[in-house]
Amino acid sequence: MFINRMPRYEILAPEAMEQLDGAWRRLVSEIGIEFMSDRALELFRQAGQRVEDNTVFLDPEFVLEQVAKAPREFDVPARNPKNNIHIGGDAMAFGAVYGPPFVREGEVRRDGSFEDYRNFLRLSQSYDVLDSAGGVVCEPNDTPLDSRHLDMNLALMTLTDKMYMGNVVSGVNAADTIRMGEILFGGRDVIEKTPVSISLINCNSPLRWDDRMLDALFEYCEAAQPVVLTPFILMGAMSPVTIPAALAQQIAEALSGIALAQLIRPGCPVIFGSFLSNIDMKTGSPTFGTPESGIGLLCTGQIARHFGLPFRSGGGMTSSQIVDAQAGYEALMTLMPTFLAGTNWVMHSAGWLDGGLVASFEKFVMDVQLLEMLQYEFTPMQIDPGSLGFEAHEEVGHGGHFLGSMHTMERFRDCFYRPFLSSSDNYDRWMRGGALDANARAGQLYKEKLESYEQPPLDDAIRAELEEYVARRRKELGD
Amino acid sequence: MFINRMPRYEILAPEAMEQLDGAWRRLVSEIGIEFMSDRALELFRQAGQRVEDNTVFLDPEFVLEQVAKAPREFDVPARNPKNNIHIGGDAMAFGAVYGPPFVREGEVRRDGSFEDYRNFLRLSQSYDVLDSAGGVVCEPNDTPLDSRHLDMNLALMTLTDKMYMGNVVSGVNAADTIRMGEILFGGRDVIEKTPVSISLINCNSPLRWDDRMLDALFEYCEAAQPVVLTPFILMGAMSPVTIPAALAQQIAEALSGIALAQLIRPGCPVIFGSFLSNIDMKTGSPTFGTPESGIGLLCTGQIARHFGLPFRSGGGMTSSQIVDAQAGYEALMTLMPTFLAGTNWVMHSAGWLDGGLVASFEKFVMDVQLLEMLQYEFTPMQIDPGSLGFEAHEEVGHGGHFLGSMHTMERFRDCFYRPFLSSSDNYDRWMRGGALDANARAGQLYKEKLESYEQPPLDDAIRAELEEYVARRRKELGD
Repeated sequence: MFINRMPRYEILAPEAMEQLDGAWRRLVSEIGIEFMSDRALELFRQAGQRVEDNTVFLDPEFVLEQVAKAPREFDVPARNPKNNIHIGGDAMAFGAVYGPPFVREGEVRRDGSFEDYRNFLRLSQSYDVLDSAGGVVCEPNDTPLDSRHLDMNLALMTLTDKMYMGNVVSGVNAADTIRMGEILFGGRDVIEKTPVSISLINCNSPLRWDDRMLDALFEYCEAAQPVVLTPFILMGAMSPVTIPAALAQQIAEALSGIALAQLIRPGCPVIFGSFLSNIDMKTGSPTFGTPESGIGLLCTGQIARHFGLPFRSGGGMTSSQIVDAQAGYEALMTLMPTFLAGTNWVMHSAGWLDGGLVASFEKFVMDVQLLEMLQYEFTPMQIDPGSLGFEAHEEVGHGGHFLGSMHTMERFRDCFYRPFLSSSDNYDRWMRGGALDANARAGQLYKEKLESYEQPPLDDAIRAELEEYVARRRKELGD
Repeated sequence: MFINRMPRYEILAPEAMEQLDGAWRRLVSEIGIEFMSDRALELFRQAGQRVEDNTVFLDPEFVLEQVAKAPREFDVPARNPKNNIHIGGDAMAFGAVYGPPFVREGEVRRDGSFEDYRNFLRLSQSYDVLDSAGGVVCEPNDTPLDSRHLDMNLALMTLTDKMYMGNVVSGVNAADTIRMGEILFGGRDVIEKTPVSISLINCNSPLRWDDRMLDALFEYCEAAQPVVLTPFILMGAMSPVTIPAALAQQIAEALSGIALAQLIRPGCPVIFGSFLSNIDMKTGSPTFGTPESGIGLLCTGQIARHFGLPFRSGGGMTSSQIVDAQAGYEALMTLMPTFLAGTNWVMHSAGWLDGGLVASFEKFVMDVQLLEMLQYEFTPMQIDPGSLGFEAHEEVGHGGHFLGSMHTMERFRDCFYRPFLSSSDNYDRWMRGGALDANARAGQLYKEKLESYEQPPLDDAIRAELEEYVARRRKELGD
């Protein structure tokens, strides 16, 4: 897991933060937040908040009291301890793309399959820069809908030994995920003591939390499993068309969800979520890798720290339909601010294409390349007499070159980051090599990576118990 | 011209700056700097510095005294006042790529021609985001070598009305550039009062200033025209293989050149230059858009401010041979730090491809797209009751959408930056449109831009005098 010891890039002046602070308070108290769950409404009512129909009018001070119960930082162990992650502080953890129904592989765009899903998990396991495959790396459309979550969970738990995300389609699916986590890690007590999954609870922005998401939220919070309370905002559609309004709304939504999480189980680990981009106001299309999303990301980090919460944002977003120059610059347009903001939990880190509708194998490789470069760039350099290299100048002199100097000989192996995808071949050599662009090279690389994949070991008894659980539940669910 | 009112991203701790400070002092005083020019050596000798052969051993305090004579900020007018630029402070000015011998257009890579050169000038004139075409946007290989600078100068002065860069191939070429500037702006007095060009004086790193560059330096400084004293460092070849060593060397080289400029003409405007990347230690190839160059760029900005000098760095660098995903992410990997560092004079802002060997029309368009996005991103947003949009929430309510709200209607035209190259079309629409990647779309866009180009007006008498000067000098130079 990466520790970002570089400075945070913060762009909100204190007065700006004050104005945002005033704005979210008005939203939660005057407009209120809708919770489509009787259990949620009852908890808020018992806690003294005014409830009308499904709308809770929240006292901002009450919200902040609840928020203060959440831990500032927490650990999430993986079944392989070397892949344990920490959420909060300077730690940054990275998961793959989440949610695409389609897959792109070379020139082909098609429905995602379970074999695609498994291959993305194998890649996530193989690249060290990723801390998790995430959850729904692509939708495995060829598996039965009711029991799909069982198939995905089993794959996440057996094809990778990294942290996994919990299923949130329903409370039932969440309960299955928790039960399988108990099997994998040794019981309910164990996972309640130190959580083993992170689950994404999206807001139906603006200002509404839906019933199925809340059912999953209840399950995970009761089991003390971390939840990412995420306003899902495409500015102009799910929020007003201005960034400040979207930020204020994002605070109102995230904090209201976090308050509920703390009512369900005080101290439950939570993550301040952000999924913030904008639409093209001419066509209505969602757009990604935009300047607006970059600004929003930088502000979100500062806001989350203001409330003492770890946060989720960022990723390798792009609107591009293929892995072209646009995909390259848009992905970095989001990933660079992701690092500048010190994002704690980064979803969509690898594989996102075509507005998130497509999981792309080539884009996955490209994003891993970007993550490696950025982790290198955001590692403070060491300045000492050795790295200042005065003796190299004594050896080389004026107008000479350093390739053969002692100072170089001692360091050339690891002095610079060496990319695995980017090419700096001269033109003739590149032409002789087939004139492959980055997309074509990425296509070769992921295939090699899949060929060299090795499944991580797992205790036979645990594997059998997981498989037995899946088989039994599949039958119960009627698939 | 862009004013960057966002915070600077600074990563050097005070102790790190102290160590760099100690290191450049040792370099200039113990190793010394080579100046391959008797005039330069004589000036240093007269100023009390120790000179042995071509090496000047500089007293660091003397260097700082000279540096303190340079202005912190200065104006460079263009012949069209709306294109005037300012160098220093929060101002950022952008020029096109500089120096490539080759041109890429679509699938063809070939020697640059004078018509290519003129077309890049027309594009530079047409895109508002660029403040200058720069100088040698590509090498016009089909023009006679001795008088090529006259052809380029005349093109820069007539096809654009933006600021131009001076020719530095020799003192003679520099003198011609200055003389043509006098014609264009109304005499030597005028341009000595307010300079009209910026010229690039590269160091033959490590620690050597060559004779031809110094001859040009003398001409420009005597005419009070700004010079960019630029250490040309590919780490591992022209400097030791560590970033701190390269930074210390860069300070030593840039400050030594600036000291000479101030000896030639105290108060002459100068720019602290940086061209800093690294080589691939396995192949020896130069590499661009690397994490190391990003770190170097951020540090360079902080260092230049430490010495109270405006600085040049950055651009849309890439090693990629074509306009693919790598070109996209590498260009932004340099351009984003360019903005984070608040670079004052940005060369290579548009068109750089293939390690700088190629000027690409498509890459030019892509880089303009990136510059527009970044200028938007680095403009502070306005936070006020209007942008916080509380009334929009009152109108829309929970779970609604904002597309038709009053708040949106009042702002939708200019609420977000709308890209001209990036596509957010849905997949079907994109396929129907020909499934063009960003490179192909850029190819259409530059052709349209060239078709709609309009030559800026110029007084007939001035044009005639410039043409007459070029004809006379061409004859004198024997072409």
